[in-house]
Amino acid sequence: MKRTHENGTLHACDAGKEVTLVGWVQKRRNLGSIVFVDLRDRSGVVQITFDETISEKVKEVRSEFILQVTGTVQMRKDANPKMATGEIEVLAKDVVIVNRAETAPITISDDTDTNEDTRLKYRYLDLRRHVLQQNLILRHRVCMAARNLLDSEGFVEIETPILARSTPEGARDYLVPSRIYNGKFWALPQSPQIYKQLLMISGMEKYFQIARCFRDEDLRSDRQPEFTQIDIEMSFGDEDTIFGVVERLMKAIFRECISAELEDTFVRIPYSECMRLYGTDKPDLRFGNTITELNDIFKDTEFQVFRSVLDTDGIIGALKFSEAASKYSRKGIDKLQDFVKHGFKAKALAWLKQENGTLSGSIAKALSDAEKAALSEKLSLADGDLVLIIADQAKIVRSSLGALRVRLGHELDLIEKDVYKFLWVTDFPMFEYSEEENRWVASHHPFTAPKEEDVRYLFSDPGRVSSRAYDLVLNGYELLSGSIRIHDQDLQEKVFEAIGLTMEEAQERFGFFLQAFRYGTPPHGGVGIGLERLVMVLAGTDNIRDVVAFPTTNSSLDLMSDAPNVVDRAQLDILGIEITKNNND
Amino acid sequence: MKRTHENGTLHACDAGKEVTLVGWVQKRRNLGSIVFVDLRDRSGVVQITFDETISEKVKEVRSEFILQVTGTVQMRKDANPKMATGEIEVLAKDVVIVNRAETAPITISDDTDTNEDTRLKYRYLDLRRHVLQQNLILRHRVCMAARNLLDSEGFVEIETPILARSTPEGARDYLVPSRIYNGKFWALPQSPQIYKQLLMISGMEKYFQIARCFRDEDLRSDRQPEFTQIDIEMSFGDEDTIFGVVERLMKAIFRECISAELEDTFVRIPYSECMRLYGTDKPDLRFGNTITELNDIFKDTEFQVFRSVLDTDGIIGALKFSEAASKYSRKGIDKLQDFVKHGFKAKALAWLKQENGTLSGSIAKALSDAEKAALSEKLSLADGDLVLIIADQAKIVRSSLGALRVRLGHELDLIEKDVYKFLWVTDFPMFEYSEEENRWVASHHPFTAPKEEDVRYLFSDPGRVSSRAYDLVLNGYELLSGSIRIHDQDLQEKVFEAIGLTMEEAQERFGFFLQAFRYGTPPHGGVGIGLERLVMVLAGTDNIRDVVAFPTTNSSLDLMSDAPNVVDRAQLDILGIEITKNNND
Repeated sequence: MKRTHENGTLHACDAGKEVTLVGWVQKRRNLGSIVFVDLRDRSGVVQITFDETISEKVKEVRSEFILQVTGTVQMRKDANPKMATGEIEVLAKDVVIVNRAETAPITISDDTDTNEDTRLKYRYLDLRRHVLQQNLILRHRVCMAARNLLDSEGFVEIETPILARSTPEGARDYLVPSRIYNGKFWALPQSPQIYKQLLMISGMEKYFQIARCFRDEDLRSDRQPEFTQIDIEMSFGDEDTIFGVVERLMKAIFRECISAELEDTFVRIPYSECMRLYGTDKPDLRFGNTITELNDIFKDTEFQVFRSVLDTDGIIGALKFSEAASKYSRKGIDKLQDFVKHGFKAKALAWLKQENGTLSGSIAKALSDAEKAALSEKLSLADGDLVLIIADQAKIVRSSLGALRVRLGHELDLIEKDVYKFLWVTDFPMFEYSEEENRWVASHHPFTAPKEEDVRYLFSDPGRVSSRAYDLVLNGYELLSGSIRIHDQDLQEKVFEAIGLTMEEAQERFGFFLQAFRYGTPPHGGVGIGLERLVMVLAGTDNIRDVVAFPTTNSSLDLMSDAPNVVDRAQLDILGIEITKNNND
Repeated sequence: MKRTHENGTLHACDAGKEVTLVGWVQKRRNLGSIVFVDLRDRSGVVQITFDETISEKVKEVRSEFILQVTGTVQMRKDANPKMATGEIEVLAKDVVIVNRAETAPITISDDTDTNEDTRLKYRYLDLRRHVLQQNLILRHRVCMAARNLLDSEGFVEIETPILARSTPEGARDYLVPSRIYNGKFWALPQSPQIYKQLLMISGMEKYFQIARCFRDEDLRSDRQPEFTQIDIEMSFGDEDTIFGVVERLMKAIFRECISAELEDTFVRIPYSECMRLYGTDKPDLRFGNTITELNDIFKDTEFQVFRSVLDTDGIIGALKFSEAASKYSRKGIDKLQDFVKHGFKAKALAWLKQENGTLSGSIAKALSDAEKAALSEKLSLADGDLVLIIADQAKIVRSSLGALRVRLGHELDLIEKDVYKFLWVTDFPMFEYSEEENRWVASHHPFTAPKEEDVRYLFSDPGRVSSRAYDLVLNGYELLSGSIRIHDQDLQEKVFEAIGLTMEEAQERFGFFLQAFRYGTPPHGGVGIGLERLVMVLAGTDNIRDVVAFPTTNSSLDLMSDAPNVVDRAQLDILGIEITKNNND
């Protein structure tokens, strides 16, 4: 088929040219004997004018018909500034109806009003919307930029199996029954973790893969059963080396995909400091308003609420928002109260406002003048400031103030637009105590290296051991996590012991993988970057389905093909399985 | 860890430099108090010399230990021409043992003598061999070259689902039970075919994906349960457009990966001519020796064997091999007899040799002088020529002569080395008759377009209809297949009718996919290129496991992780399935 130009690329400078275009009819308007058609292809839309000499030929044409049009580009009498090609139009000389279309069951336009489920059912039509096509192209650009950068740094992309071994604890593993070996199963990997570490053992030194991962999630709004990870692992490096690679990678992606220049080196904060300042390990650094701990000010307080919190090892934390006092009425603050009580189990939210040099608010009367003065100094209070205070167990104070900080950040419009604030959070705790299992468990995974200086606490005080795990956070989203791995067998055995795993049990769970460590394992570490999350940030969307070509719903259904679906009895026979439980309709 | 150079990159010009290297001990030799170590990293191997001042430190070092060595590059007294770095060595000043290694259970060297199963079990060690690492790097280079070329031509890589809908005939589909919807299943796609056609319907125009595909194969030597396809689809093009993309793609890959320059345009042969000349649709064009049909010469023959073949619509086909007469004794020809009889059901193999202007051989006495003269002229026979003749049904003649051609091509060393002969085979038959099902079935898939001029035979003579399906053949291997698809609903219904499918049945099988065609489907077509096959040709290996990081055995077992494996009863309970048949040990 002849085609000389892409519709969206035509400009005033093309005026006078004869062009042949193809595309879908976005819109058709009759003006007496003249017909206007907006013709859409992947590049964009251009207006075609069919005058009385030819309009008869497009009489039957409707939305989503496919046309091939030959004509002359000419300047429009009244330009349409909303269209990229709005200065020009194409006066048709010849037209071929390439294919017909029934009436589409959804509205195909960027401001579509069709509900999401219907659009998911007709995903192939919804994908005709410019915004979704641009998102898919952006995703492609991100992958190209990532591959080119990593390739240029000597990383080799290696495909690891999707049909893999099931692990005993793989409750989130998708299983695949074997036809040849009835009674046995493959599992779809949640990440290429084991394979990439094996590739380090095999001496590939620098590996990456834009890898499909699978996780049979419970129903959550922002997850898909399959997702993609920019997976990286390297040998003979440390945090500095790996962070350097990732920083150059991010800079390349942001520069090439959205022309944004990132800062040269990203901020690093240890986990404990991050929690103290932001109440979360995923802080949004696009605004300040960090948490201030007030324990020192109130160490001798007679205010009973604070007194009892301090006496039971709790903390008193405060957030200050400048010029916010007038924006939160009593009712507004009540909503914040509910928010922290119901969402974060905080017992109460105290608040203060400074007006005309005086503090008022829920606890103003309970505090001594000295305490108020100290508070004012510590927080550098000025007229119009709003202070939110929570006194409780550290965990509750941090999570509720962390959430309040983000909430008010949005409500007060404190968040800078088009700004990308990256942050490395390092030194995550090696273990967390599982009340359920009544033992220490690995926070990341049991192959993560502890910090060398903390190895001595492995048994005496596991909660004190920091690991060499790290996250990269962008604008409040966790973009990746990773770690330096253990490469020393003795240390690995100690870590297993610390989480109450005997070597026999470890062997049973990780078998061949542990064996591999015996034959010369290099120091290594890496990261896994959530591709969808990254593209979402770049595309400026909060909906993961906007950056996935054929997504499932929140409830893990593919509405387009109606999957998962019931299969023939005969297919199950071949696999040697039968259905014992059926929770379908 | 400090590291200034990669081991394999050191050259004479580095002499005098102080370097810090890391790597695995490939070999260790003691020469009294001097110790030589070949230190290997991904880039190659270099010799380190530990003199008496330092050799004590490497006393305990054995093969596969990891060392970090600082020293000075110096010229060797006697260069080792077999090593890329053989002109130089590094005189060690300092050494750190980074990690220890137990004795490896396989021989880690390119000429390893360990059997393949053991090497597959310890794949992470086998992957330390230079040749395998180079293959993985080559595979990466191929993918980079493919992506860069396709990207530069406006193709967008789009990830399509791996958890997909099962099709009723999917006996080769891997099924995945759903945990959330017990009783329902996902299927792993054998190719992204349906998704890529939907992307054309959605107007993405130019799609590609280096896509993982899954096929639950019966046990065959050259297949893996999962494999990778360079999958391409485009709208508004025809065969010329698509072939052009693929030809530029191949040229880019061969140039960038193995510095080979391919011809500008690849030869095209219609299927029927290909079968006539080569007896196969995957001919190796690196040598000639095409099949000559002799029916016209023998149309009036009285030689009973030929007579009866011609009277029953059979054909007489011949291969000529110059200067081969002396290389095939009676016994040698007997082997060829057995080959065509047992392998291809040929009733007999006739042969002739020309010596001193005279024809001798199995049928020499049965032919008339005129027939011999005509034969000699037709085949341009010369002294020393060997002629192999089979008279039988066309199918048998072609398959057996096609196979004989390849066999003698190898035996007589007729195949040019380091030559890449590409060939488009076009116009494949649209249908083939299934004796089993007693009906015509689609040769490619039922969405393949028939040739326009053959549409009139759809019902009257289905066997006569050629399709717009094509293969690209390289050196006798099928590298890709593809087709122009049907985009017209009426034609699609006719094709279903021709294979005896009612619209109801079609709806049941292809449902949502057929519906998608109603809303404005562009003309489109594409290809799927077998990545492993392509890399095998580039790497010069016949073993698919040489180009896959973690392959399975011929019997679909992952010996390294021992998968597929038995899973916990509890995991199956969650999935709502149980095992009914168990063919494990």
